[in-house]
Amino acid sequence: MGCPTADAEITARVFMAAELRGLSSHGMIRIKDYYQLWKAGRINIKPNIRIVHESPSTAVVDGDGAIGMIAATRSMQIAIRKAEKAGTGWVSTRGSNHFGIAGYYAMMALEHNMIGITMTNANPLVAPTFSISRLLGTNPVAVAVPTKKQPPFIADFSTTPIARGKLAVAEKKGEKTLPGYVQDKNGRTSIDPAILKQGGSMLTLGGDYEHGSHKGYCMSAIVDIFSAVLSGANFGPFVPPSVAYLPVLDNKVGEGTGHFFGAMRIDAWQKADTFKTKMDEWISTFRNAKSAPGMPDVMIPGDPESAKEKQNGSRGIQVIPAVLSDLKDIAGELNIEFEIKQ
Amino acid sequence: MGCPTADAEITARVFMAAELRGLSSHGMIRIKDYYQLWKAGRINIKPNIRIVHESPSTAVVDGDGAIGMIAATRSMQIAIRKAEKAGTGWVSTRGSNHFGIAGYYAMMALEHNMIGITMTNANPLVAPTFSISRLLGTNPVAVAVPTKKQPPFIADFSTTPIARGKLAVAEKKGEKTLPGYVQDKNGRTSIDPAILKQGGSMLTLGGDYEHGSHKGYCMSAIVDIFSAVLSGANFGPFVPPSVAYLPVLDNKVGEGTGHFFGAMRIDAWQKADTFKTKMDEWISTFRNAKSAPGMPDVMIPGDPESAKEKQNGSRGIQVIPAVLSDLKDIAGELNIEFEIKQ
Repeated sequence: MGCPTADAEITARVFMAAELRGLSSHGMIRIKDYYQLWKAGRINIKPNIRIVHESPSTAVVDGDGAIGMIAATRSMQIAIRKAEKAGTGWVSTRGSNHFGIAGYYAMMALEHNMIGITMTNANPLVAPTFSISRLLGTNPVAVAVPTKKQPPFIADFSTTPIARGKLAVAEKKGEKTLPGYVQDKNGRTSIDPAILKQGGSMLTLGGDYEHGSHKGYCMSAIVDIFSAVLSGANFGPFVPPSVAYLPVLDNKVGEGTGHFFGAMRIDAWQKADTFKTKMDEWISTFRNAKSAPGMPDVMIPGDPESAKEKQNGSRGIQVIPAVLSDLKDIAGELNIEFEIKQ
Repeated sequence: MGCPTADAEITARVFMAAELRGLSSHGMIRIKDYYQLWKAGRINIKPNIRIVHESPSTAVVDGDGAIGMIAATRSMQIAIRKAEKAGTGWVSTRGSNHFGIAGYYAMMALEHNMIGITMTNANPLVAPTFSISRLLGTNPVAVAVPTKKQPPFIADFSTTPIARGKLAVAEKKGEKTLPGYVQDKNGRTSIDPAILKQGGSMLTLGGDYEHGSHKGYCMSAIVDIFSAVLSGANFGPFVPPSVAYLPVLDNKVGEGTGHFFGAMRIDAWQKADTFKTKMDEWISTFRNAKSAPGMPDVMIPGDPESAKEKQNGSRGIQVIPAVLSDLKDIAGELNIEFEIKQ
């Protein structure tokens, strides 16, 4: 596509992290979407990414229409650099696109002995409490915390009961979903995973008002405001679609998709070693929690993905044939050699 | 109790804000608890609150056993002062106690044209996903965002489906709760609001794993780590009880209860006026969302509490007789004149 080699490598690395960590819904399956967005002129592969406003601990970054991975990596690097001097660094990014797994950028902070934070807004598919209007994305939050001997604490979660990818899987398998994930266009509970195509919407974490859906809505709103209102990106219902077959809206309120990044240097609070020992203690306390009869062990955020990463790292990843076939087609269009090593 | 006048005024102001905003579960009903904690030597009313570690944008504050309101107000003032210079300010506080409503401190940022953030850990009553161990509090998050003509955006929510106070109300009325709030000591769903007294526990936001309770658990864990591991307070199951009739644990892992505060200066990101106009636009977009048939209007975070504040501010607040009688008893013990103006 003409992408600078360094940028291509960053993008590949984030896709690969998703595949290794068992989050293939954010992995190579998306390459076709990115390619088509580029063909439609909606991704700029030679962007001029720049800081447009800053203070000692903050920056607004304009991604200039970059692939999300490129804008996000640069933004997180800026947050880390700011944290080195000011103790913490915070970047709100506009003019970006879909960036893959949020956890990847939060994890960039770990090797610097920093806590990393990522948020992003996303395609509007989620209705706030009481509503049938699709005003929010699945707006994920990721937080990575360094540890000493334990694997790092890595929370990476959408602010909806389930990720959108799980609906797509249920739809492909012809299965119904559990109640509590989606509603139809009139706000009635639905178990049809294809309901989003008929004007339905996803619910926020909590499901209904009686079970705290307004709290999931609050979280999602905070992600949207930090990612888009602080940076000047499109907020809420104005976030541009991350697939080329959906049109760009005429009524933009900002530039592209918005993200938010944070880096907090541990020794801006206390000795890094003391903190990391304490985090190990936190983790073993929670790991030793008593499970309810018949239930699995209590999870530490990041554990399931770390286990997958170890497993996939040694035996390789599985790619579904349709994705391989898409990649082969793209390679053909771009005159790139394409070989599958079994 | 011998509290300095300025500190007594701060404490009264936070209690009153809770009453006015319709959150009386965090209002005067708690004065008796605070009084008894003080009598038991577990609250220090002449604390030496001090910064023990800092960087340009961060500080760890030791509350020295202060009333939570005092430690929290000082900590938020420090966060705001740091933000004036560094763009953002972040304070993690240890050695504190119950501090009333989280939203109060986040709202302190508004008049400085800053976004305010508050978190706190709390008595362990909540079990992480799959578990029956009470390892977390209801660990609330509050975020206040300045606006231009609209009332400010004020999210203030626990990371559980409902606040603990609602269980107490149901119990007093002899009512059952909806399913999805609590489980018994064996992890079975319960609708008994008194189940916490029989080894039961509250669930995290999401309710069960299938509906994202692990995401509520992640949020609650992040609140706990930012509030207590960063500051050196007691984390998770070690948080000291906020009532004197429950004993202090022998196995402390830190000092008192922990809080986390943030202040982000708007013009560290962009012109404050531009941002506030955009926030108004965000709010009207969400206010104009279409409600599902038969459902109320879509809420903007903070709207219900602002409405209550207006109402109560003009007609006064209602205090339940048992609370008045407690206050009268305390006044008697302390030889303070006590008069109720009708």
